[in-house]
Amino acid sequence: MTKIFSEDALKASPSQIREILKVINQPGIISLAGGLPNPDTFVGKEEIIYSIKQYYNNFWLQYAKTSGVDELKEKIANEWKVNKEEVMIVSGSQQGLYLSSLAFIDKDDKIITEKPTYLAALQAFRTRNPNIIGVDIENDGINIESLEKILENEKIKFIYTIPNFQNPSGITMSLNKRKELIKLAKDYEFLIIEDDPYGKLRYSGEDIPSLKKLDDENNVLYLGTFSKIFAPGTRIGFIIGDSEILKKFEILKQPIDLCTETLGQYLISSHFDKIPKNIDYAKKIYKKKRDLMLDSLDIFMPDGVKWIKPDGGMFLWIKTNVNTDKMFDYAIKNGVAYVPGKTFYPNEDNTNYLRLNFTYPEDDKIEEGIIRLSKTIKEFK
Amino acid sequence: MTKIFSEDALKASPSQIREILKVINQPGIISLAGGLPNPDTFVGKEEIIYSIKQYYNNFWLQYAKTSGVDELKEKIANEWKVNKEEVMIVSGSQQGLYLSSLAFIDKDDKIITEKPTYLAALQAFRTRNPNIIGVDIENDGINIESLEKILENEKIKFIYTIPNFQNPSGITMSLNKRKELIKLAKDYEFLIIEDDPYGKLRYSGEDIPSLKKLDDENNVLYLGTFSKIFAPGTRIGFIIGDSEILKKFEILKQPIDLCTETLGQYLISSHFDKIPKNIDYAKKIYKKKRDLMLDSLDIFMPDGVKWIKPDGGMFLWIKTNVNTDKMFDYAIKNGVAYVPGKTFYPNEDNTNYLRLNFTYPEDDKIEEGIIRLSKTIKEFK
Repeated sequence: MTKIFSEDALKASPSQIREILKVINQPGIISLAGGLPNPDTFVGKEEIIYSIKQYYNNFWLQYAKTSGVDELKEKIANEWKVNKEEVMIVSGSQQGLYLSSLAFIDKDDKIITEKPTYLAALQAFRTRNPNIIGVDIENDGINIESLEKILENEKIKFIYTIPNFQNPSGITMSLNKRKELIKLAKDYEFLIIEDDPYGKLRYSGEDIPSLKKLDDENNVLYLGTFSKIFAPGTRIGFIIGDSEILKKFEILKQPIDLCTETLGQYLISSHFDKIPKNIDYAKKIYKKKRDLMLDSLDIFMPDGVKWIKPDGGMFLWIKTNVNTDKMFDYAIKNGVAYVPGKTFYPNEDNTNYLRLNFTYPEDDKIEEGIIRLSKTIKEFK
Repeated sequence: MTKIFSEDALKASPSQIREILKVINQPGIISLAGGLPNPDTFVGKEEIIYSIKQYYNNFWLQYAKTSGVDELKEKIANEWKVNKEEVMIVSGSQQGLYLSSLAFIDKDDKIITEKPTYLAALQAFRTRNPNIIGVDIENDGINIESLEKILENEKIKFIYTIPNFQNPSGITMSLNKRKELIKLAKDYEFLIIEDDPYGKLRYSGEDIPSLKKLDDENNVLYLGTFSKIFAPGTRIGFIIGDSEILKKFEILKQPIDLCTETLGQYLISSHFDKIPKNIDYAKKIYKKKRDLMLDSLDIFMPDGVKWIKPDGGMFLWIKTNVNTDKMFDYAIKNGVAYVPGKTFYPNEDNTNYLRLNFTYPEDDKIEEGIIRLSKTIKEFK
């Protein structure tokens, strides 16, 4: 069988997270490992039925344009104060990452990601065999000096960043650093791929303008999604960017899936004005869960274990003194699961960290999960 | 801007059909060009509301497994009498084509397609730069002698075929030829990618077993879809094949879109037993439209224009004595649109054919469309 696969297929390896998710669906395990939004925050069944009853027409289940359903694109364009041609609908913002990879990366091209960073972005980029350079992040985002040092020596295609409540670190990039990054993109002529799945899920502190809003040179490609503010199962993401780039993305998307599913696009479009209400509700639920987890960490974690308080998003990033990769099996024995931090590094083995999700577990599982994890860290040698 | 794109992105060109579709949405044009199923045949609004009311739960809008929602996979496995591991859900069968391309094709690998063949399959394969060899088709399918001649000289990775009511030719492969093809796949060790979007839409003649059903060596990868028997907008396709191949496909799908949209998967699953009724209804509507178009062709087409009566599917394939590519603008002037046949050839310029769609146009537009087209062909020099 092996001989029939392409070189790229032979090389492709499964996502470690998706593999972990298979292990932990055992009874009794409290999983803090996943990355799932809480179904309590999804658009309601009654609201879906209402939208279909009120607005359904023959287009809702027909093939659509590759670039997306016009009425949804118009609503997004309106919110962003851009032209419709600067908006494209994609099958989850994951597809935006994949299309970016196809559109910009030739073998051995240099790109930059934060380290740590979102695993599935690394996966999407790796399909094109780039040279991925990791740049350190601090409590207020990318280490700009390190970045400049890289840029002085290397010609890069793009930098990939999650400026708000980063996955996995929870870190938010400061306004100053955003401005500096925009300036560097202009000076060194590279694109910024701004991935913002959690931007609207802020539980403390003040909103900071997106890189896209701060950019007047069209060097930023913004990836948004309705997965966390409407529901993930409809797989509706969007891109805001230069219309010439999006024309190319449209051509690249055709052979992949012809178009993004239309029912979800129309459901979101017809529900569009009510999404802020969904967001308020989600924020209330998630803030409580975040605070519960932070309080439990304060109470139960042994000395030497550290974390940053995230102002939003879905994750907490924990620094330990142990090898979290090796500790994983012991944690499962103790009835708790996390994602080992190693997974999130583009090309080095940093094994001290672990990622926790606070949006999916039920409230009463959060404290118990942290108790089990604290015990695991204390006992593991 | 150009310098930022990858080599593959620079090379990618838009689908000619999708470009044509943009031209023909002008008032007064009767379009026989598209490839759309008729929305009258889609699952009804009331049925969707019923499914949601009765069966909705927290999983319907959550992320799902990359390989698809279990309950839908089980129903398909049951219908096909295979294991669940031999079924995978994809984002439209187009994604099955794209994954096949990723999984099997290295640059310059040889693959075979029928000529003519489905344009978007060619597009999906071309993303991997294969050497595509076209094999002639006759009224009962692939010319087996031509195929054997190719196989004697070339080592090929796979053959891509649409055995039922082929797009664009409407041709159906005979049972004998299916058996011969299966035997050749065994002897020469290649895969068969069987694309069967229209198999259940037969309006005359007897059903013929799929290649997959005739294959006892697991050399066939079967691509199915709910686009024509439920609705296309949900973008739910499926693959039946060797479980080792599907494991690889799952890994390749992860970076592309994480998972296929779940709402559509659950809607189809909860409506599964009623789909045969949808199909019966669609067949009634489509048979009438096909017969209407065949009758109109008989009455109005000038001598020398030829076509094959398709026993199902969505398309009629017309052989003319003119260059249908050059005639296109004149047809638009006369208020009718078609797809020039050239588009469907892997690597030669056969310009005498054109493709007509009979499923989408309203009944009273079909005769008028054929009158306009006949006039166009008569007058065009």
